[in-house]
Amino acid sequence: MTRGFPASEYQARLARAQAMMDTAGLAALLLTTEPEIRYFTGFLTRFWESPTRPWFLVVPARGAPIAVIPAIGRHLMAQGWISDIRTWAAPDYTDDGIGLLADTLIEVAGADGRIGLPDRMESHVRMPLAGLTRLQSLLGAHRLTGDATILRRLRLVKSEAEIAKIRTACAIATRAFARVPEIAAPGLPLSQVFRRFQMLCLEEGADYVAYLAGAAGQGGYGDVISPAGDTPLAASDVLMLDTGLVYDGYFCDFDRNFSIGPASAEVQDAHAKLMEATDAAFDIARPGACAVDLFHAMNAIVNPCGGVAEAGRLGHGLGMQLTEWPSLVPDDTTVLAPGMVLTLEPGIALPGGRIMVHEENIVIRANGAEYLSGHSPGPIREVALK
Amino acid sequence: MTRGFPASEYQARLARAQAMMDTAGLAALLLTTEPEIRYFTGFLTRFWESPTRPWFLVVPARGAPIAVIPAIGRHLMAQGWISDIRTWAAPDYTDDGIGLLADTLIEVAGADGRIGLPDRMESHVRMPLAGLTRLQSLLGAHRLTGDATILRRLRLVKSEAEIAKIRTACAIATRAFARVPEIAAPGLPLSQVFRRFQMLCLEEGADYVAYLAGAAGQGGYGDVISPAGDTPLAASDVLMLDTGLVYDGYFCDFDRNFSIGPASAEVQDAHAKLMEATDAAFDIARPGACAVDLFHAMNAIVNPCGGVAEAGRLGHGLGMQLTEWPSLVPDDTTVLAPGMVLTLEPGIALPGGRIMVHEENIVIRANGAEYLSGHSPGPIREVALK
Repeated sequence: MTRGFPASEYQARLARAQAMMDTAGLAALLLTTEPEIRYFTGFLTRFWESPTRPWFLVVPARGAPIAVIPAIGRHLMAQGWISDIRTWAAPDYTDDGIGLLADTLIEVAGADGRIGLPDRMESHVRMPLAGLTRLQSLLGAHRLTGDATILRRLRLVKSEAEIAKIRTACAIATRAFARVPEIAAPGLPLSQVFRRFQMLCLEEGADYVAYLAGAAGQGGYGDVISPAGDTPLAASDVLMLDTGLVYDGYFCDFDRNFSIGPASAEVQDAHAKLMEATDAAFDIARPGACAVDLFHAMNAIVNPCGGVAEAGRLGHGLGMQLTEWPSLVPDDTTVLAPGMVLTLEPGIALPGGRIMVHEENIVIRANGAEYLSGHSPGPIREVALK
Repeated sequence: MTRGFPASEYQARLARAQAMMDTAGLAALLLTTEPEIRYFTGFLTRFWESPTRPWFLVVPARGAPIAVIPAIGRHLMAQGWISDIRTWAAPDYTDDGIGLLADTLIEVAGADGRIGLPDRMESHVRMPLAGLTRLQSLLGAHRLTGDATILRRLRLVKSEAEIAKIRTACAIATRAFARVPEIAAPGLPLSQVFRRFQMLCLEEGADYVAYLAGAAGQGGYGDVISPAGDTPLAASDVLMLDTGLVYDGYFCDFDRNFSIGPASAEVQDAHAKLMEATDAAFDIARPGACAVDLFHAMNAIVNPCGGVAEAGRLGHGLGMQLTEWPSLVPDDTTVLAPGMVLTLEPGIALPGGRIMVHEENIVIRANGAEYLSGHSPGPIREVALK
C-alpha cells in the first residue's frame, strides 16, 4: 500500500474545514496536537513522544495552512504538501514560538478575526499554560475561542483512503491474534506473552505497537488497562490481549480472549454473551442509527438489569488515535453515517469482581456495517495445556 | 528486578513536594499528565494512549494525594499506595469530572488557598480547555496558578531506584544495538529494519518500544525524526537508529550509526568527531558544572564556527519521559547534581544538507559521570555487504 495520501486528500479536508469555519465565523483554527496537525499536513513522526517542543498549525479561513514549528521539523514537514513553514530554534528559553505564532495569527486573522482551538471532550491544548496565557495577551482577550467542534466533526467520517489504512492495521492484528497459541503457554509470565505478542504484530507488518493492554486471571480479570506483571499463566486463566497497533499512522483497536486449557461453563457463557452483544450492535449499525442505539443493543445483553459498566462505554470511534469521538454511551446521540469507524466493546461482570471484555472494529457503510477486525464468532479459543 | 517502587519512594517524593509547596505558598498541586500523576502514585498504564478521559491528581500541602479519576482506573490505582480514590463514570457528557475535581480542590485548599499547575516549558494541561475554564470559574479567578516549577525540580534528580530502571532500559537497548548486523542488510527496506529492530528490543527485554526514529542515506541523512520509508538500504548508506524503549515505566534514549559496507573517509571523520564531542561533554559532566557547559564542550567540536544546530540542543534530561528538563542549550544554566540523568546528543552537518547525530545516556555521580548506555568509542560499525 502506498504510504501517506495524495495532496488531494488534504485539500479536500481543508475545503470541508473552511466551509465549517465560514459557518462558525472563525478566521482561523489553531491546532497543537499530533492528530490535529497531521490531519491537515500529513506530518507523521513518533517525535511527539518528546514533550519539549510545542508545534502549531494555523488553518486560515482562506488559503493554505501555515506550519509554525520547531526548526528540527522543517525537513520532514517540507516533504509533504505544506509550503508555508515558519520555524524557530526550539527550545528557546526567551520565546518558545509564541511570538512567531502570534504574528502569524494576526497576519491571517486580521485585527479582530476569531481564532478557534479544539476545546471540548477528547481534546487538550498541547502547549505550556503560560504560553497560552501569553498568546491570549498578545492577541487580545477574546480572539481565542472554541473550534465549534470542527475538528471532531471532520475526523468523525473517514475517507476511503483512511479506511484502507485502518483495514490494513486490523488485518495485521487479526493475523497476530491467530498466532497467539504459538506464543502463550501455561507457566509463561504474562510480561513475556506481552513481549512476544508485540513481536508477532511487528512480524505481521505493524509499523509499531502503540498500545497493548491485557490481563490474565482465573476465570476472568480485574481490569483491562493494567500493564503485564510477571505472574505465569496458569490453567483456567482467561488471557485477554487488546492491541492498538499502527500502520502508516492509523490504528486498529480490538482484543481477543483465550482460555488456558479448557474453559469453564461460566467463561464459555460469558464469552458467548459478549459475541451475542457484539453482533447485536453490528446488526443495527447503519446510517441513521445513533451511537446510543448501539450502546443499548449491547447493554441489554451484557448488563440486562441496566446501569453502565465501569469502563463507562461500550465502544468508541477509531482512526488516527486509539480512541476517538463518539462514545457508545447512553448520552451520545451521534447519528451514524457512512465512513464512520467504530469499536464495539461490550464488557461483562462476573462474580468476584472479575470481568471479561470483547472488542471488534467496524466501518459504517451505506446499507449497514462491515467488520474490519476479522470477527469470527464462536467459542473462546483455547491455548493447549500441552 | 522488582517492578514498581516501595511506598517509601512515593512518600519521599511527596515530602519533597510538600516542602517546596510550603516555600511557594501553594495549598495544593493539580496534576493532569501521565508522568506527573505516575510520579506520585505509581499509576502505570499504556491507557493514556486514549485521549478520551481526563485524569487528575490533587497533591495537598498536608496529607496524602487524592486521585480524581475515571472509574475505569479505580482497580489499577487501588493496587498502589494511594487510598483516597474518587471516581466518576467517564466519559460523562454533562460533567466529565470537573465538578468532582472542584469539590476536592476546595476541600483540600480551603476558601482561598492557591493551587499550582505545571505551566512552563515541557508541560501542558491535559484536559479540555473548556473544562479548565469551567474549573477556574468554579474555583474563583485567581486560585489556579503556576506550580513554581516544583514538578520540574522534583523530577530533575532521580533516586537510585529510578536510575536502576533507566540503567536496565539502557542495557536492553545496548544488547539490541549490538545485534543490528543480524537484522540490517543491503536491499532491505528501512521500514523492515525498523520492525526487526523493535523485535530485537522486545526480545532483549523491553516492555515496549515507545520511540524509534532513524534514517538511512548516502553518507548521512536529512533529519532524525522521520518515520521509516520503504527504500532499501544500499552500499554507502549511513543507517541511524534512535530508540526510546521502556522498562517498567522508564526510558532510555540513545542511538547508533552503522555504515552499510565500508564507510567513506568523510563519514569516518564525522563519526570520530561525534565520539570526541560526546567524550568532551562526559569528561566535564560532574556536580557543579552547568548544562550550558556540556553544550559548549560538544558544540566547539561539532560546530567550531559557532551557532546552534537545527535540532536546537545537544542533549537533554531523561527518565519517565523520552525527553525531560534540562536542555543542553546556550541558555540553560541548570547546575548539575548527583542523580541527574542526561543524554549527550551531538549532531554534525555534512555537505549537501546531510547530518549525522550520535547519542549516549549518562548519570551524574558525586565525582563525575557514568555512562548508562554501553558507550564504546571507536569507528562507525559496518554492516557487511555480504
